[in-house]
Amino acid sequence: MEEKGVHRGGENNNQEQENQSDTSHNRSPLLSNPWKPCRRHHAVVKGWLLKLRCCLVTVCGIEWYGYAALGILTAVLSFLMDFSVAKLLRAHRWLYTMLEGNILLQFFSWTLYPACLCAVSSSFSHNICPFSTGSGIPEVRAMLAGIEMPHYLSLTHLFTKFLGLICTLAAGSTVFLGKVGPFVHLSTMVGAYLGNLCTLIQDKKKENAVGEMLVVAAAVGVASCFGAPIGGVLFSVEVMSSHFALRHYCPGFFSAACGALTFRLLAVWGGDGETLQALFKTSFPTALPFYPLEILLFAFLGLLCGAVSCCYLFCHRWILRFTKTNPFFIKMLTTEKGLYSAMVAFFLASLTFPHFAGQYMASKNTMKELLTSFLDSRQWSSQSHNASEQLEQPSLEWTSSGIHVCLSLVFFLLMKMWMLVLACTLPLPAGYFMPVFVYGAALGRLVGEGAVYLSPTGVASGPQWVPVNPGGYALAGAAAFSGAVTHTLSPVLVAIELTGQFSHAVPILVATLLANAVARSGHRPSFYDALSISKRLPHLPSLKKACPQLPSTPVGQVVVKSVLLQKAAGPLEVERAVKTSTETQIPVVDTSAHSQGFTFNSRLRGDRRKWGKEITFIICNFEHFVEKERVGWKGIVLAHICTGSFPCVSHG
Amino acid sequence: MEEKGVHRGGENNNQEQENQSDTSHNRSPLLSNPWKPCRRHHAVVKGWLLKLRCCLVTVCGIEWYGYAALGILTAVLSFLMDFSVAKLLRAHRWLYTMLEGNILLQFFSWTLYPACLCAVSSSFSHNICPFSTGSGIPEVRAMLAGIEMPHYLSLTHLFTKFLGLICTLAAGSTVFLGKVGPFVHLSTMVGAYLGNLCTLIQDKKKENAVGEMLVVAAAVGVASCFGAPIGGVLFSVEVMSSHFALRHYCPGFFSAACGALTFRLLAVWGGDGETLQALFKTSFPTALPFYPLEILLFAFLGLLCGAVSCCYLFCHRWILRFTKTNPFFIKMLTTEKGLYSAMVAFFLASLTFPHFAGQYMASKNTMKELLTSFLDSRQWSSQSHNASEQLEQPSLEWTSSGIHVCLSLVFFLLMKMWMLVLACTLPLPAGYFMPVFVYGAALGRLVGEGAVYLSPTGVASGPQWVPVNPGGYALAGAAAFSGAVTHTLSPVLVAIELTGQFSHAVPILVATLLANAVARSGHRPSFYDALSISKRLPHLPSLKKACPQLPSTPVGQVVVKSVLLQKAAGPLEVERAVKTSTETQIPVVDTSAHSQGFTFNSRLRGDRRKWGKEITFIICNFEHFVEKERVGWKGIVLAHICTGSFPCVSHG
Repeated sequence: MEEKGVHRGGENNNQEQENQSDTSHNRSPLLSNPWKPCRRHHAVVKGWLLKLRCCLVTVCGIEWYGYAALGILTAVLSFLMDFSVAKLLRAHRWLYTMLEGNILLQFFSWTLYPACLCAVSSSFSHNICPFSTGSGIPEVRAMLAGIEMPHYLSLTHLFTKFLGLICTLAAGSTVFLGKVGPFVHLSTMVGAYLGNLCTLIQDKKKENAVGEMLVVAAAVGVASCFGAPIGGVLFSVEVMSSHFALRHYCPGFFSAACGALTFRLLAVWGGDGETLQALFKTSFPTALPFYPLEILLFAFLGLLCGAVSCCYLFCHRWILRFTKTNPFFIKMLTTEKGLYSAMVAFFLASLTFPHFAGQYMASKNTMKELLTSFLDSRQWSSQSHNASEQLEQPSLEWTSSGIHVCLSLVFFLLMKMWMLVLACTLPLPAGYFMPVFVYGAALGRLVGEGAVYLSPTGVASGPQWVPVNPGGYALAGAAAFSGAVTHTLSPVLVAIELTGQFSHAVPILVATLLANAVARSGHRPSFYDALSISKRLPHLPSLKKACPQLPSTPVGQVVVKSVLLQKAAGPLEVERAVKTSTETQIPVVDTSAHSQGFTFNSRLRGDRRKWGKEITFIICNFEHFVEKERVGWKGIVLAHICTGSFPCVSHG
Repeated sequence: MEEKGVHRGGENNNQEQENQSDTSHNRSPLLSNPWKPCRRHHAVVKGWLLKLRCCLVTVCGIEWYGYAALGILTAVLSFLMDFSVAKLLRAHRWLYTMLEGNILLQFFSWTLYPACLCAVSSSFSHNICPFSTGSGIPEVRAMLAGIEMPHYLSLTHLFTKFLGLICTLAAGSTVFLGKVGPFVHLSTMVGAYLGNLCTLIQDKKKENAVGEMLVVAAAVGVASCFGAPIGGVLFSVEVMSSHFALRHYCPGFFSAACGALTFRLLAVWGGDGETLQALFKTSFPTALPFYPLEILLFAFLGLLCGAVSCCYLFCHRWILRFTKTNPFFIKMLTTEKGLYSAMVAFFLASLTFPHFAGQYMASKNTMKELLTSFLDSRQWSSQSHNASEQLEQPSLEWTSSGIHVCLSLVFFLLMKMWMLVLACTLPLPAGYFMPVFVYGAALGRLVGEGAVYLSPTGVASGPQWVPVNPGGYALAGAAAFSGAVTHTLSPVLVAIELTGQFSHAVPILVATLLANAVARSGHRPSFYDALSISKRLPHLPSLKKACPQLPSTPVGQVVVKSVLLQKAAGPLEVERAVKTSTETQIPVVDTSAHSQGFTFNSRLRGDRRKWGKEITFIICNFEHFVEKERVGWKGIVLAHICTGSFPCVSHG
C-alpha cells in the first residue's frame, strides 16, 4: 500500500498515461518501483512493457514463458558445457599425440592434465562455494520436499558449479564422472531465478510459482543433459518425489520438450548432424532385432546387473562411511580438498595410462566414445579379424591390445568398479549417473560378446541364422544397471531416447525390471538415498526402504494428537510433553531447516525407561513445507501416507 | 478365532502333519477351511500347497505373482479378442467379395452384417449386464477414487463385456469403435479377482491388496491392448488419477511388461511376425527423418489438432446432452437398445457402402489397415501415378477412387467427425481412444500430403532435396489429436510404441503439447470428464477444469471444522448443521456409494437466503476411500490438495 502511495505521489505527470495503458497491473512489484532519473523515458518503456505483458498474457500465463525460458536456458548451458568440454578433451588428446615417442612426457601429460583439472575444480568449489561439490540431487530432493536451503540456489553457486563441472568433465574418462546430477542442480538454480522473475512480473503468490518452477526444473535438467524429454521427466519423478501431482506433468513435459528441442537444434546448427537426432544414434538391424528366446538372455543380464549393482552400492556405502570415520580422510577432505583431488586423479590416471594397464581398458576413448563403442551393433570379435577396414572406429581400441575382447571387458569392469567408487569420494561437482550407465553398457556388452563367442553364427530362426547383436545387450545392460543403482525404471526411456532405438524396448524393460527387483530385494538404500543418509538430509519417501525396522503407523492414530514437541526441545520439555500427553505417540516437529533427522532419537534412547509408558516419537521434518500449504504438520503426515513410508521411530 | 476352533476340533488326525509343514500359515482362509470328505488326501494336498506357497514366497511376495498373472491373463484375453475379431472381419470381407457383381446383395451384406453384430452386442449387454455398455474408463476412475461398485467387477460383467466387445469390433470400420476403454475395464475385473485370490492365499489386509491390484490393472489394460507397456502405464496414470504414488510404479510397469511381452509373444507364435515387434511397424527413413524446420509444420499440425479436438469435444458434449434430454432418444436408449444400435449401424454402413460414398473414404479397409495406410512413409500422390506396382497395399484404396488424395482425406475427415459422434451414442461396449487416434492420423496425413502437394520435390537440405514423409505427420497427428481429446500427453509414447518409430519423438511431443494447450485453454472437460459428468460419476481431479467458477479453498480453513453433513440429510438436518456450526463452510460427506455428485447443490440452492450467513458446502464424495485409509474425510481433502482441484461449491 505504501509503495503504491509513493508511486501515486511521485509520478503524477505520467499517471494518466499509465492508467490508459493498464490500470489493473500497477501493483506489480517490478513495474511499480519508481525509477528516479529520466521519468518520461521510463514511463514510455514501462508502458511498452505493460503492453508486452498484456500481449503475452492473452496467449497463456506468464509462467509458461518461464517454463519455456527455463528449458531453453538449461539447454544452452548444456550445449556450452559440452562444447567447452569437447575443446578441452581435444586439447588433451592433441598434447598426448604430439608427445608420441617420449613415454615419460606422455605419462606426465596423461596424468597431470586431469590431476590439475580436478585440483582446480575442487579448490575452486571449496573456496567460492563449499556446497557445490557432489551430485546435488540429494539437496534438490530435500528442497523439493520443502526444506529451505537458500544458499543452494544462489548465483555464485550456479557459476561455481558450472565451471567446476566443466573441469571435472574435461578430466575425461580417467576420472570417469558425468554431468546429470549437477545439471539437475544447475537447472534448479535457473528455475528458482526464473520463478522469482515470474513472481515479479505476475501478481501471484510467490511460494507456489517458485515451488512449481523447481519441480519442473528438476525434470528439465535431465532432459537438457541428454536431449531426452520423456525419460528426463520420468527420472525426475522417480528420483525426486514419492508421489507426483499431475498438474506438474504438463509444465514438466513442456519445459523438457523446449529444452530437448533447443539442445538438439543447437547441435544441428553447430554442425553436429543434419537433423534432430539422438545423441548416441545407433543403427541396429530393424528387420529382426532379436530372436524371441533371446528375452531369456536379457532377463539373465538383468539379474546380473542387479547383483553387480548390489555389490557396487555396498562398496559405495562403505566408502561413504569410511570417509566420514577415518581421521586421515576427514582431515584431507576438510582442509586439503584440492590436494586430495589431484592425488586421486593422478593415481587413477596413472593406472589408465595407455602404455600401461590402460591399453586393456580402451582408456584413450572419452566417455562418449566408450558408450558409442559399446552400443555398436557390429560384433567386435569378428571385427578384430579384418581390423584394417575401419581405423577410425572407437570400438577398435578394444581389439587393438591383442587379448580377447571378453577378457578386456572383464578387466575394464573389475578395474572401473573400485575406480568409480574411489572417484565418488572426490570433493568436486560431478554426476554419478553417466558412469554407472556406461558401466552397465560394458556389462551388457560383455554378455553380448559372450553370447557371440558361444554361438558365433548366431541364433537359428527358421531356415536362416540371425547374428547376435551385442549392441542391444549393451543398451539393455546400461538401462538395467543404472536403473538398479538408482532404484528407478526411467533409465529404460533415457536409454531409448539416447540411442533413438525402439526395437529393443521390451527386452530393455524386462532387464531393468529384474535388475530393480534384485537391487531392491534387500531393502537397502539406493545410490541417492545413501548420499542423503551420508549428508544427513531428510528423505522421507525412501526411509522405509533404508530402515525397514521402523514401524509404520496408521495416520488416523496420529492425527488426533495435540501435543507437539519442538525438535530443539531439551529434556525438561520432553518430559513435560510425555507427562501431559495421554497418548503413546508424540509428533516431533523440526523448526530448524537443515535437520539432522535422527540424532534426536539417540538422545532420547537412554531415557526411555523413566516415563513408565511406551512412547513413540514421530519425527516430522517438514514444518516449512507444511507452513507453505497452510495445513499444519498433519498435512505432511497425510500427504505422505500415500507413499506408505511415514517415518515413525518407536521406542517401545 | 471361531474358525480356528472348528479347525482344531474337527481335524485332530492331521493336526500334527500340518503343524510340521507350516504352523504359522494355518490362519489363511483358503487353507484353514475344513474340507469334509477325503480328509487324508486333502491334508496331503494342503501340505503340498503350503510348501508351494513357501517356495513362492521365498522369491518374492505373492502379490507379484498376481501382477504377473494379471498381465499374462489380460494379454491372452486381448489376443483371443483380436483373433476372433480378425476371423469375423475376414468372414465379412469374404461374403462381400463372393457377392461381387450383384450390388443389391452386396449392399445388404455390407450393411446388415455390422447392424446385426451391433444389435447382438447391444441386446446382449442390455439383457445380461446393463452396466457393461460404453467405455468403462469413467467407472474405473471412480472405483480407483474409492467408490465401491461391486457389480462393475462381477464375472458376468466380464463375459458380457468381452463378448459384446468382440461383436462391436467385428462391426469394423463402418461403426469405427475401438477396444482400449473396455479393455481397461476388463483388466480391472481380472485384477479384482486376482487381488481377491492373493488376499485368500496371503494373510494381508484385503482392501490394500485389491486396491493396489486395481491401480495396476488399469495400467495393464492399455499395455496389453497395444503391446505398449510404457505408454500404457503413463496413460493410466494421466487418465485415472490426479496424483500417483510411486509405490504403484514398479508393480504397474512389471505387470504391463508381462502383458506386453505375452501379447507380442502370442503374436509371434501365432505366426504374425518373426520376432517381438511393434503392432504397426513402420519403416521411416532413419538417415534424415525430417528437416529441422519441419518442426514448424509439426507445431502447426499440433495447433490444428487442438482446434479440431475442441470441435469434436463440443459435438460430443452436445450429443451427450441431447440423448439425455430428447424424449425420443431417451425412450429408444432405455427400452429399444438393440433396435437403436441396429438402426444406427445400418445407417452408418449404408453411407460407407463402397459403391456409394465409401469409395472416397477407403471404407473397405479395417481400422488397422486404415492406420497402417496413414502411417505409410511413401507419398500417396506419387504412388497414384504408378499404382500398378503394389496392388495389395491398403493405402491404394485411397488413390483408387480417382479424386485427389487430399480431397479424399478431407471428405473422410468431415464424414467421420459426425459419424464418430453418432457412434458414441451406441449403447454397447466400445472404446473411443482408437477411433480418435485413427482420426488424428488422418488429419496428420492430410497435412503431410498437403505439404507434399505444395512442395513435391521435398525440402532443401543443403545440396540435396529431402522428400517429405507424410507418415511422420500422420503419427504426430494421431498422438496430438488423441492427446488433445483425452487431455493427456501419454499418446506420444503410445504412438511411439505402436509403431516402434523413435526418430520422430521430438516433433510428436511438440505437436501433442501444442494440441493439449489449445484443447485445455477453454477449461472445458476432457472426453472422459464429459462422460463422467454425463453419467454423474464423481471425478474430483478434473472438476476444477470442468467448472472453473468453483472457488478453491485453502485446506487449512477446512480441516479445523467439525460439523459434518450426510449427503442424504434432509432439510432439517441441513438447517441444524448450519445453525450449529460457527464456520462458513460445511463438509458434506456422501455415504451412499454411487453418488450423484451435484444434485445436492441444486436442492440447496433455493434455501440459501434463509440462513442469514454465507455458507459454503464442500462436497466430499469419497467416504469409502477415506474409511479404508483410516484417515477420515480430512484425509481426502489433504490428499487432493496437491492436485489444486479441491471441489467446493460456494453459495455465496
